[in-house]
Amino acid sequence: MTVEDSKRLRSEAGVEEAALELHRRLAGKVSVAPKAELTEETLELLYTPGVGAVSRHLAHDAGDARELTWKGNTVAIVSDGSAVLGLGDEGPLAALPVLEGKALLFKALAGVDAIPIALDVVGCDELVAATRALAPAFGAINLEDIKAPGCFEIERRLRKTLDVPVVHDDQHGTAVVVLAALLNAARVTERELRDLRVAIMGAGAGGAATARLLRAHGVKRISVTDSKGALGPARGDLDKAKQALVDDLGLDGQGAARDVIAGADVIVGLSVPSAFSCEDVATMSDNAIVFALANPEPEVEPDEARGAGAAVVATGRSDHPNQVNNVLAFPGLFRGALDAGLGEIDEAALLRAAQALAELVESPNAESILPRVLDERVVPAVAAAVRGTG
Amino acid sequence: MTVEDSKRLRSEAGVEEAALELHRRLAGKVSVAPKAELTEETLELLYTPGVGAVSRHLAHDAGDARELTWKGNTVAIVSDGSAVLGLGDEGPLAALPVLEGKALLFKALAGVDAIPIALDVVGCDELVAATRALAPAFGAINLEDIKAPGCFEIERRLRKTLDVPVVHDDQHGTAVVVLAALLNAARVTERELRDLRVAIMGAGAGGAATARLLRAHGVKRISVTDSKGALGPARGDLDKAKQALVDDLGLDGQGAARDVIAGADVIVGLSVPSAFSCEDVATMSDNAIVFALANPEPEVEPDEARGAGAAVVATGRSDHPNQVNNVLAFPGLFRGALDAGLGEIDEAALLRAAQALAELVESPNAESILPRVLDERVVPAVAAAVRGTG
Repeated sequence: MTVEDSKRLRSEAGVEEAALELHRRLAGKVSVAPKAELTEETLELLYTPGVGAVSRHLAHDAGDARELTWKGNTVAIVSDGSAVLGLGDEGPLAALPVLEGKALLFKALAGVDAIPIALDVVGCDELVAATRALAPAFGAINLEDIKAPGCFEIERRLRKTLDVPVVHDDQHGTAVVVLAALLNAARVTERELRDLRVAIMGAGAGGAATARLLRAHGVKRISVTDSKGALGPARGDLDKAKQALVDDLGLDGQGAARDVIAGADVIVGLSVPSAFSCEDVATMSDNAIVFALANPEPEVEPDEARGAGAAVVATGRSDHPNQVNNVLAFPGLFRGALDAGLGEIDEAALLRAAQALAELVESPNAESILPRVLDERVVPAVAAAVRGTG
Repeated sequence: MTVEDSKRLRSEAGVEEAALELHRRLAGKVSVAPKAELTEETLELLYTPGVGAVSRHLAHDAGDARELTWKGNTVAIVSDGSAVLGLGDEGPLAALPVLEGKALLFKALAGVDAIPIALDVVGCDELVAATRALAPAFGAINLEDIKAPGCFEIERRLRKTLDVPVVHDDQHGTAVVVLAALLNAARVTERELRDLRVAIMGAGAGGAATARLLRAHGVKRISVTDSKGALGPARGDLDKAKQALVDDLGLDGQGAARDVIAGADVIVGLSVPSAFSCEDVATMSDNAIVFALANPEPEVEPDEARGAGAAVVATGRSDHPNQVNNVLAFPGLFRGALDAGLGEIDEAALLRAAQALAELVESPNAESILPRVLDERVVPAVAAAVRGTG
């Protein structure tokens, strides 16, 4: 399948039809490749009888698996299909094309051997058990498209029991890219991000993790809303995860989303397209920074948001400036962790990664606060930041 | 890593040292390969936003996963490391080099994308649960290096619940290759296999499955022994799996292994190297067929077995004639099943595969009862037999 084929397909049909046709032609976006030619000699060393010596070695010294097997360069991309893109709980096979897409990106951008693992499980316990079971052969776990609030508990439990990094990308990949983009958006508007008042629409995976990472960066005034309004101590209807967010960050919001947006410096849309509108943008402070990240239709069109007073606008789309896309984070995050043999990717590493990503844009302006997603400098910079050698 | 490197390594060191060094240099025997070039165009179709159309399609029509994802060409090679080669219960990381080796063979010989899945589980229930959980993205399951008797129950339970082929290769791959080799060994000695008296040393995965497949072929007189002697109604100490073998095949053996071997036409060694000796071979009938399949050291050396009266001798080793190796079966078995979209590989398919494998040897003789393991005709012939189009 060539790039020309894709271009022709795309020009002949809409994105959806072209995507279906390209998927049909490929029948899988990644495949398995032997790393050695198969001959009688290599068969003897790599299979029987030679492999016995390697198995015996690992039986006594499992720690050498990173040197003697593929473990040192592998990531399991694990999903139960409970939150597939914006579609909802559609099951493992609906998640599989997303997981395969990530596997392709992992390899093409960062040389990481990532395996799509689409799990048929019900509930947190089964997902945790299956992931723990399959973990030994992998150097890291990328949790993907798992619905909130279960995703928080699942990540926490897996981190506690596994000795390799466990990262729910919808949380932390999103948070890293949003923080990087906000760092440059603040710079473009000649302010310190720490001093801005930030309203985050959405208390799911992306919203919660972004709120936490912004606080870790030092942002003091953060509001988070869900479909019922601002999260705060007055809310008696919060689940455990949202209550923990209120407690941990000292959130004290009240009222509806629009009350939170009024006067805010920054709005980050991480829920549904209807979460806010241009009328809301018009109530923000001067030099407003508007991240309309709902996909594929943003909450507000960039032109209209600017018309309503926004100084910097970002979306999730590749056909607008300032595309906020996790592709900018996950390949480098895991590349760095695998290279350094890390047991976890901690908050400090995420902060360094966001900073490194932001610094790749030498002269940020309102139309350029992030590198392009296929910019070849991105993965090495993020990986170095994670390793702590950036 | 080139073939020349392997040859040099092998000549400089023994097999074990050379195997360890080659594994160290490769750090994994298979890797992940993108099936499309990554550009802004393909990113749009294969990841965001295009992949959404594919996920939506599969949410409503999961059956199309074979066309739209890698499912149609993938096999999960699943092990708990409870019976790693001849080493025993050494755990998932000790099994991983074996699983990777099979993945390399699957791809190089049959174009199958096979993924090593080394599971950290305890007991049948956990292994069944984890395998069921990860099954959706795979077109077939190859169980590997799982100890008896658990392996029988595990395979049975998985077959019942999954709609893709589940094959424990240590059982059925072994049985297919042994049957194929015996068909030609009988032909070489100008007899019908069905009429011969067969003694199978070992009632584990390989022994039990071989006994069953030989019976399915029509072999009437079969004895099976374990470490305590012949399996039969007089044995009060049998576990459920062995009792089922006695009941299903009407085994009526008694006495020690040597009593069963005396007068037998065929002996198949599928247990430990000490299971029989040349003295035992000398007690067999004329034109004895001796399969000494213990690895890496066979029960008897071919020369000595012939000296003791054996007409045809096979081992598991590549440096002797007549190598009995599962590589002759599993790539073609799964290739055929995936090509035809089979929900199972049944006994009839296994019998056809063995027949096809035997027929590849045009003029069998005592030194040539099986094709060489890298013979390019093997996979197509076995696959066609499994599809029923051979």
